[in-house]
Amino acid sequence: MKRRSLFLGLAGVSLLPAWAAPDNKLANGKLLIIGGAEDRVHDKLILKRFLELSGGENAKLVLIVAASSDPAAVAHTYSQAFEELGATQFSVLPLLSYDDAFKPEVIDPLQTADGIFMAGGDQSRLMACLWETPAQKAIHRAFHVRGAFIAGTSAGAAVMSRQMIAQGPATVLPEKDTVTFDIGLGLIKNTIVDQHFSQRRRLGRLLSAIAQRPDLLGVGIDEDTAVLIERQKAVEVIGKGAITIVDGRKMKSNFDEIESQDRLELQGLQLHVLPAPNRYTLNKNGKFNSRLHPSLENALQILVDPAPNRG
Amino acid sequence: MKRRSLFLGLAGVSLLPAWAAPDNKLANGKLLIIGGAEDRVHDKLILKRFLELSGGENAKLVLIVAASSDPAAVAHTYSQAFEELGATQFSVLPLLSYDDAFKPEVIDPLQTADGIFMAGGDQSRLMACLWETPAQKAIHRAFHVRGAFIAGTSAGAAVMSRQMIAQGPATVLPEKDTVTFDIGLGLIKNTIVDQHFSQRRRLGRLLSAIAQRPDLLGVGIDEDTAVLIERQKAVEVIGKGAITIVDGRKMKSNFDEIESQDRLELQGLQLHVLPAPNRYTLNKNGKFNSRLHPSLENALQILVDPAPNRG
Repeated sequence: MKRRSLFLGLAGVSLLPAWAAPDNKLANGKLLIIGGAEDRVHDKLILKRFLELSGGENAKLVLIVAASSDPAAVAHTYSQAFEELGATQFSVLPLLSYDDAFKPEVIDPLQTADGIFMAGGDQSRLMACLWETPAQKAIHRAFHVRGAFIAGTSAGAAVMSRQMIAQGPATVLPEKDTVTFDIGLGLIKNTIVDQHFSQRRRLGRLLSAIAQRPDLLGVGIDEDTAVLIERQKAVEVIGKGAITIVDGRKMKSNFDEIESQDRLELQGLQLHVLPAPNRYTLNKNGKFNSRLHPSLENALQILVDPAPNRG
Repeated sequence: MKRRSLFLGLAGVSLLPAWAAPDNKLANGKLLIIGGAEDRVHDKLILKRFLELSGGENAKLVLIVAASSDPAAVAHTYSQAFEELGATQFSVLPLLSYDDAFKPEVIDPLQTADGIFMAGGDQSRLMACLWETPAQKAIHRAFHVRGAFIAGTSAGAAVMSRQMIAQGPATVLPEKDTVTFDIGLGLIKNTIVDQHFSQRRRLGRLLSAIAQRPDLLGVGIDEDTAVLIERQKAVEVIGKGAITIVDGRKMKSNFDEIESQDRLELQGLQLHVLPAPNRYTLNKNGKFNSRLHPSLENALQILVDPAPNRG
């Protein structure tokens, strides 16, 4: 686990860089976290929104296909989709290996992009290309400093959080230690994202994950569905399905008393089901405009304030 | 809906009979609510427990097969299973129609049974045989007055509550008005039971049901799994799976603002996952012995105190 030891060794340095210190103002970047299988052929609702909020047809868009085992096919699909949507400055980043992540032809486009889109595949493969590279720093700066729009689908959604689910079967019931974690980009804090959520019946898996890390908010995102986060402004659910938030921060579990693979007893989780379309907007006092259940207000406050952290 | 109008018309009379008035002491009966497909061939863990808690091998057991479309086959399966378990006084109740429910050969065995077991099938068919009959009264008296042990699996589990799910597709996400209710026996209060829970992926369906009736506690029971309720003594989860409790009594939903079949937004549900084996025992102060999350303590207090009600 070379990356993990690097992470532990350099935590204070690499994860909380100077520009991200609390007294530095963070840019109002946007995140689009997509549960996979978003429409790329018909209405393209989610991709269209990405283009619009990146600045419209002339926005500079870059696509990262490093997660995929067939990057050429993925590049082709998205190139066609964005061309059909009228994007004039769309390019596929030549990033397929760790070494690529140090090259100017990768870093330069990230430094000027209005929108960065991370396609699906394997989240660990994606992070193996990015971890502790100038390309990773360029993505962080794009979001936190320049206020660019970062989107990710499936594997690209998983890496949005610091702790991400690397692997884990969709067990019917939550079980101890069946989920393995890896380290993601950490663009959102104190959250763990799971994708293809309802379609792959992953509630058991997400509950297994938060039993292991009850400090993290679990966010399950359905296919062709996305959470749009506009920092300090709004959280919106768009697309065809819903997001499911499981909040175990006040739960009681038997995690410390059982063996690996044993069934988890989970008491007192908070559960929220938020179907699309739904937009939750912050008012000037930093509260959400609509009258929300207090526990949802609290959960959405975490999502609306993405910030670098180690969570 | 003849039964429903009877129910509404006679609610005060038929559902709160004299022997069930608050100042009458209710017997410490037991309920076994089984999620269907309990083992009847191998370890027979759940059936064995039913036999033991009914009084052992010489307990008087009666089987109700009125829910089934193939009552002879069901009768054969359970006869064999209980014979293998050593039961000496097991009989199948000759109850297959509404008219049967008035006959002495049905009522008499119910009046003396130590254990009554309701097999699966269609819960509405079962209630069509029992509703407002002497047989139904005999079951109520058996439980509330004589303290007999009442078990039900699948359809037999659904009828344990007053409001029961008659039909409803296992929608991936909760939707308004996709569940139809019917009236069950009401042996437990303020609860709605769903069966085959994890196996048939019924969380969406149970959430749809409690969105409609947020005053009711939703209890989803897995196959080959049961909740054993010993009145004012203990709630126990036995078998192979888990029970899932969804408590929407403090939730906020958009139920009143949307159309039928629309997606439900549900905020602030409480969720508990309780795998078998787990026993939660009341102490002398009427609190549960183990340190429980307050919201689970509150939910289990409802289950441990089954009582006639209209909920």
